[in-house]
This record gives sequence, structure tokens and C-alpha cells, in this order.
Amino acid sequence: MPVNAVGREIPSLVGGRNLVPFKGAFEMHQRGWKVPLPLKPTNYSTDKLVGSLEEAFDMTGITHGQCLSFHHHLRNGDRVLNMVMELAQKRGLKGLKLAQSALFPVHEPVVKMIENGTIASIEGSINGPVGRAVSEGKMQDLAVLRSHGSRVRAIHIGALKIDTAFIASPIADCYGNAHGREGPSACGPLGYSLADARYARNAVVVTDNLAPYPVVPPTISQVYTDWVVKVDSIGDPDQISSGTTKITDDPIRLDIAKNTIKLVDACGIVENGMSFQAGAGGISLAALNYLAETMRKKKVKARFAHGGITIHIVKMLREGLVEQILDTQSFDAESVESLRTDPRHIEIEPDFYANPFNKGQLVNMIDFSVMSATEVDIDFNVNVNTHSDGYLLHGIGGHQDVAAGSKCCIITCPTHRKNWPIVMDRVTTVTTPGETIDAVITEEGIAINPNRDDMYEAAKSAGLKVVDIQDLSKIAKEKAEKAGGPPPPEPNFGDRIVALIAYRDGTVIDVVREVKK
Amino acid sequence: MPVNAVGREIPSLVGGRNLVPFKGAFEMHQRGWKVPLPLKPTNYSTDKLVGSLEEAFDMTGITHGQCLSFHHHLRNGDRVLNMVMELAQKRGLKGLKLAQSALFPVHEPVVKMIENGTIASIEGSINGPVGRAVSEGKMQDLAVLRSHGSRVRAIHIGALKIDTAFIASPIADCYGNAHGREGPSACGPLGYSLADARYARNAVVVTDNLAPYPVVPPTISQVYTDWVVKVDSIGDPDQISSGTTKITDDPIRLDIAKNTIKLVDACGIVENGMSFQAGAGGISLAALNYLAETMRKKKVKARFAHGGITIHIVKMLREGLVEQILDTQSFDAESVESLRTDPRHIEIEPDFYANPFNKGQLVNMIDFSVMSATEVDIDFNVNVNTHSDGYLLHGIGGHQDVAAGSKCCIITCPTHRKNWPIVMDRVTTVTTPGETIDAVITEEGIAINPNRDDMYEAAKSAGLKVVDIQDLSKIAKEKAEKAGGPPPPEPNFGDRIVALIAYRDGTVIDVVREVKK
Repeated sequence: MPVNAVGREIPSLVGGRNLVPFKGAFEMHQRGWKVPLPLKPTNYSTDKLVGSLEEAFDMTGITHGQCLSFHHHLRNGDRVLNMVMELAQKRGLKGLKLAQSALFPVHEPVVKMIENGTIASIEGSINGPVGRAVSEGKMQDLAVLRSHGSRVRAIHIGALKIDTAFIASPIADCYGNAHGREGPSACGPLGYSLADARYARNAVVVTDNLAPYPVVPPTISQVYTDWVVKVDSIGDPDQISSGTTKITDDPIRLDIAKNTIKLVDACGIVENGMSFQAGAGGISLAALNYLAETMRKKKVKARFAHGGITIHIVKMLREGLVEQILDTQSFDAESVESLRTDPRHIEIEPDFYANPFNKGQLVNMIDFSVMSATEVDIDFNVNVNTHSDGYLLHGIGGHQDVAAGSKCCIITCPTHRKNWPIVMDRVTTVTTPGETIDAVITEEGIAINPNRDDMYEAAKSAGLKVVDIQDLSKIAKEKAEKAGGPPPPEPNFGDRIVALIAYRDGTVIDVVREVKK
Repeated sequence: MPVNAVGREIPSLVGGRNLVPFKGAFEMHQRGWKVPLPLKPTNYSTDKLVGSLEEAFDMTGITHGQCLSFHHHLRNGDRVLNMVMELAQKRGLKGLKLAQSALFPVHEPVVKMIENGTIASIEGSINGPVGRAVSEGKMQDLAVLRSHGSRVRAIHIGALKIDTAFIASPIADCYGNAHGREGPSACGPLGYSLADARYARNAVVVTDNLAPYPVVPPTISQVYTDWVVKVDSIGDPDQISSGTTKITDDPIRLDIAKNTIKLVDACGIVENGMSFQAGAGGISLAALNYLAETMRKKKVKARFAHGGITIHIVKMLREGLVEQILDTQSFDAESVESLRTDPRHIEIEPDFYANPFNKGQLVNMIDFSVMSATEVDIDFNVNVNTHSDGYLLHGIGGHQDVAAGSKCCIITCPTHRKNWPIVMDRVTTVTTPGETIDAVITEEGIAINPNRDDMYEAAKSAGLKVVDIQDLSKIAKEKAEKAGGPPPPEPNFGDRIVALIAYRDGTVIDVVREVKK
């Protein structure tokens, strides 16, 4: 079986798909033409309201085997995906492809639809119970996981063909203009559905908040919307802004956060005009606090911050530490409010932020990023998809995109969680190739990628504890054993491939195999 | 020769083009797919700056016979079109197609390039001296005139294929994000170049105001831009906001404006939630004043106004008479400032506003519009392209789009200008078909389209002077003769067709023939 550039065996054909093995983070340069957009005038009508989702199904002609897409801006509060898919199930549709930008625990009903054949395959990020079902081999066809940028790329080049996009919209008008900044289910940006709206054969806006025409500026524009459906509720506000945004108070993790900013500063990055991305994990958020402190001390202003936005970045904007926020998703109510009211807080779409096959991506302009890992190995490869027991439990998010783009990409993690090492010799699944990771910061020291001599020297000069990644792996193993007993058994993988981990350029960086109980 | 739905003879083949005769304003419903967008990753580079326009020519490989496009947001202050085309001429390029969204008198150097073969054809609006040159038969191939919406449509379906778009940008960053709201050459929106940026094989941002990354929110996005060129000056600020925005003080025209609003009110349109479009002509602007007066009296608020925006509409926004301004082009400095600072003043692009072949157009949602005419005939057909002497001297603008879309489209004009009748039996050139015009308001009374019995009744009930359009034509002839002597001779047309007047759906509504001296 051919081995790809991160040493994983990638079969050339799986489930009728020809796979191109990952060749390196910057090796693919596809040129030519995107797939065309549908040309479908509305014949001068001025009202696209249909009475129900049923009617929208009839108008768009949804039938067996088609691909339906959804965005994840409503996160664990989303009601639209379940509503639509339950209708599909009720209508007896089979073999559908689900192309959400991400799933959350709230989407557990999807498991049943996988089991009864309503859903045959999934292309999108999978969190939680659906991932487990896929790992258990319950789904007929493959799951394909892609990064934020890669999903847009796949839609643009026709690797992901969407029949009907359902777009949960916190506010919309009868002509199909919609955005996420207002309404009982306000979620901030709505950009994860923009490629869907443009390229899908049909785009259906689903809203619980119909407002007078025109709803502007729209994220989803009337020029792409076919139909508008009013429903009682598209989401549960309490779950839309759910609690992923707590700063860690664990002293070990706080120490990691502090050293992260020390490293960044040692590398000469904390200067006027800098830019950064920080995720919503506990360590990343703590790092933001230390960053703010350092910036105040040095009287430095950042040109922009990108994210996944939380109140912590909003506060930096308000304090003047950050000039502009570029927002692809808002993680809390304060961020939604800031996006709605502060002209320096700007919504951007994933094409702009991360698509490697357009003419320019924001990630390429980011000076440093701080991200987490489920596992990281001695080649600096990162796994964020599977747990060490082999189960597929998380999506890629923007991990690959930000790592490849940002000039300095730092992974922060403790060496272990209980008896599970995090730093290890070989990750269970490769999500992000080591060549795009610059440093791994743990409580036992900082490992610097050998291709970053400059960072090594900077860290040393700043008196930071630099360790070899191999040593870190050994320490992790020992500490995990000491803390939680002997290491858990290796995952019991079967032969069957249940999911592909696509790299952002469309090649396959790893496969996920069935887990036998 | 086949005759189209407004009675004009349209040959089936001209200059190698197959022409489809106009069939009626709402008869074409083309479905299928648009042409694909270029897939052209920038290979992870982060700087698209090239040293000069020469270098941009080299990078984009501009050669003989190619199509170069430009926007007209800098109006008569634009320096970029001349700069680029003079370079093309200097490099000895021949047979180019010029695809500007509009030309102005400042672009007179184009005449020489037509004469020496640098430019072989033009697809875009033509104002002034270039139109005269085309009418005199100086251009090798055809000119094709399209409306705002039709230009976008033509680009989307591949009827207008652009090799390289040059986008004059009042502010831009090194990665190709640009907009028109700031800088010494600020012009407001930049949307007329958006279809070009998306669909052209190459997009070159030309700016005199390079700002730190990122310039957001961009009208022209990095995802479409190939190259960025810094030049000394893209425009003359005094000419960018030139004086098209003076309210008439002629009592006859003021009377027409007053009756326009009386008619609109009589039709029940001046109600809460209404919407309107008013052009920048003297009568239209005066009508705005009367409209504001009526709205104040009735305590009515408009949901939105669209235009061509002037200070007069901005004042209505500030007063609270208008809730939102949707702006495709700003005609004065105050409008640019309002767009930059007032979140209720929103930039939209011509695809959103007027493209008949997308899924929804703003024009369809406009309650009433007030526009002018060079000539209007007894079938309510309007000419805004040629003067009565046959010379091609104006573009279509949004005339066809707004007439077709808005629920009530009113043409305001005096019956004559000196000895030239405006209302006449048969317009020299049909720009906008009579079936989309609802009323013609002159100082001699109001002619109502026979397909609008409702408006006829409303006008009568309101005591307005309603006249037959045939009678209006007779009166116009008499008054013109009385005022300026016998009517000027008929235009001395040759056989050769020099320009096509496309309807918004791509059919041909009229042709323009060479004028013999």
C-alpha cells in the first residue's frame, strides 16, 4: 500500500473513491477552473417564502442519495439539522449524504439515521456520538473530514457537490437575505454556509425571525437563495454560546500559557502591527491574558486578531490592544454583540480565511497561532480527530489551515491526561503534518521543530527550557504511568476504513479504521 | 430582416455575432450554469505587489486582442483607464476589447486608440466623445451597450469574457483587499468591478493608497486579486464627485417634480415601509424634496432608498425619513462620507441590485422610481443612448433594470428641449421598452401607460392632468417648433451597424447605425 509523506499507508481506492496520498503541506498547486455556479433566475418573483420544510423539500426535489448541507454556527444549540433530517427520515429517504460544516452532541439523532440507512455518508466535521457510531462501523459509506478551508475548496472544485443547502438563519427576509447578528438565535457570523449557498443546486434559508426586506448587509444574499422557510425556532440560545470559553485555572496549564507568550516574545513577534489567532481552549485563552499583559508592558498594538472569537479578544479590541477582529465564528454572546455593533469587528468567510486554492488566505498573514492537540508525536504531527482509543470524536476545524499558514504555530498541551500520554512516538491519526508545527509547549519544556533553528536560538536566549521532542515523549509516558497506571491498550482496529482525514489540499493525510469492541 | 418586440429590425448576424431579437421584458428565462471562476491558488505567497503597471502587464500576459476591464466609480476623475490603455498603446498592442462599466469625457484619449487600432471593440457604457467616434464609424468592430444588471449577467454567462480586470482602488493592501470608502480618491462603493474581479482570468488592483493588511471589509477581496500595483494617483478628487447633483430651479421642471410625487401619492405608494429609487438628474432630485415634504406631512418612513446616492437622500436618512440606503454608486463627497460612517448606509453590488439572471434583484423590490429620458415615444419606449441627431452619447446605466423591476416607473421630462421634441412618435433608439414604463410626466400633463388602468384612475381621482401620449407627442412637436424653429433634420444614418443596445436579458432591443456627416 502506498505510504504518504507523513508515513501513513493510504490505499489508492476506498469506497469507490480514488485517493491521492498527502505529498507535503505545500506540494499541491491545482490550477484551472472551479465548478460553475447554478444559473437559475427567479423569474422576477419577489417572494420566496414557502409554507413549511415539507414544501421546501417538494420545491427542491430532494430525493434518495442526495447531498444536504448545513452550517454549525448554532453549535450545540442547532435545531435545524435535526429538523430537516428527521423530515427526510419521515419521508423514507435513503442513502443521503450529510455535508454539515460540523456536528455537535445535539445531533445524536443522526446516529439512528445512520443505522437505518437514511444517511449513507458524511462529509464534514464530526463531534461526539456520531463519530463513535462511525468508528463502530455503523455507516454504510465513508466519512470524509476536511478542514475549514478544505471544505470550501472541495465545494469550489466539485469534490463536494451539494444538492440542497439548508441555512439556519437568525434573521432573514422573504427574499432570502440573511445573517447571524440579530434575533433570538443570534450566533454572529454565518459564513460557513456561504460556499454552500453559492454552489448548491438549491439554497433554502430557514429562519425563526423573518424581518422586513431588506436584511442588510446580508451574509447570505438573495442572489443565492431559492426558498425561505419560517419555523418556530432554529436554536437554543443557551447552547449556541456554550461554555468552551473558560480560561484554565490549573497552574500547570497556566504555566504552559505563560511560556507560550514568552516564546512568542523571544521570537520578536510581539511588535506593533502583529497578528494572531488563539483558539477557545483553556490554555489558548490563558495565553491571551499573558499576551495582553506583555503588549501593555511593551506598548504594542496588534493589527488584527482572528478566530473563533471570545470575549477575551473582544476585550483586547476595546482596550485598543487589537485594532481589528476578523471573525469566522463567535463563541459567546459578547462576541456576537461586538460583531453587531463595533465596526472594527468584522465578519469574514472561510474562503477568505483558509481556502488554500483561492488567490489569498488570511491564515498566511497570521504571525502566530496557539492551538491544542489530542496527541502530538516526535515528528510534530498532531492528531485532533481520534482519541488514543481509536474513536473518531472531533473535527479538524481550522487546525491544518492555521498551522500551514501562520508564521509561527504553537501547540500547547500537558504531556499527558491521566494515564494517556499526549506527546508520543506516533499519533493514532495524523490531522496536521509536523512540518507545519513550529513548537510544542508542555509543562516539561518546549520542543522546537528542527526546521526552526531561529526559534530554537530565540528560546534558548530567553532562558526558556528547551527539550528534545523524543525526550518529551519518554517523559510523557513515564508521567502518565505514574499518574494513572499502565498505559491503556492500543486501539483494536479492524481492517475496514470508515473515515478519511483529508488534508487541506484534498490529498489524504490519514485514514480512520473501524474500532472493534 | 426580423423585427423585435419593440418593432426594430435586428439582423441575425452582425460582426460575427448571432443576435437574438428582444422578445419582451420578461420572456427570457435562461437556466443552467454560469461560466466557471478561475482556480488559481497563489501558492501560499503573501505579497502580490508588483513594481509597475508594466510588470502587471508582463505577469498577466496581456497581448493582442485581449479584453481589459475597468469600473467607473471614479467617474470623470478616473486616471486608471487612460494610464493602462496608454501603456497598452505604447506596447503596440492591437485589437483590444475595452470592457469598462462606463466611459466619461476624461477618457477622450480612447478615441485615438480606436483610430489607430489599439482598441477594436468596446463593451460597456459610452459617454461623450468616444460615443461620437463610434457613431462616426471609426471603430473596427462593434460597441455593445448593456445595463448595470446586464453587464453582470453577461460576465456570469460568459457573453463578456474578461482577460484582465484593472480595478482602481482608493484604498488597498498588499494582498489585494480593496474598497472605495477611504483615501484621497475615495469614491464610495467599488461594486461595479466585483463581477470582473471574480470572473476575469486576472485581477489587478491599482491603488494610490496602500494601507496595512487587512483592508476590511473589502469590496474587492484578496481571494480574487492576482496583483497589486501602486501608482501616484488613481483619480482627480474634484472630478470624482462631479456636479451631476444639482436640484433644478426651473419652474417648469419643478412643476414636473411636484406632479410626480402627487401621482406617486395618489397611487397609494407613500406609506410606511415604502421604497424608492431616484436618479441624480435635476428633476429627480427636486422630486426627492417634494417626496420628503409629503412624507413629513404623512409621518411616513421609507424602508429603503436605492441609487446612485446623493446628499439629498443622505439627508433623508439622517432625518429618519429613510431607514436604510442601499448604495451602488456615490455621486458626491457627502454620500461617500455617509457610506463610510453610517451603518444604515450600505454598499451593494450590481449583481444584488439588478442582474436579471440571478435568484433575486433589488430592483424587483422597489416601489417607485423616477428617471429621465432623452426621448420617449407614443409606445412609452425610452431612449437614453442616442441624441435625436443619431449620435451615441450615453450609456444605459440602470435604466432598463429599474424600469423592469420597480412597481411604478415614472419618466420625467419636459416635452421638448429647444427645437428638439422629447416626446415623439418613434424614438431614435429604444433603450427601455415601453411595457416597463408606467407614466411619463411632462409640463403638459401626465401620460399613463394603457396597461396601468389603476394608475390612470388614481391620477384622475387626484385631479392630476392626464393626457394621451399621442396628444403629448403632438404638443411636443408644436412647442418645439414654436420655441426653436423647425425641427432638425432626421439623422443621416448609414447602413453600417456600429453598436448594439442589449436588453438586460441579453437580447438585442435596438442597433445603432453609423451617422454620415
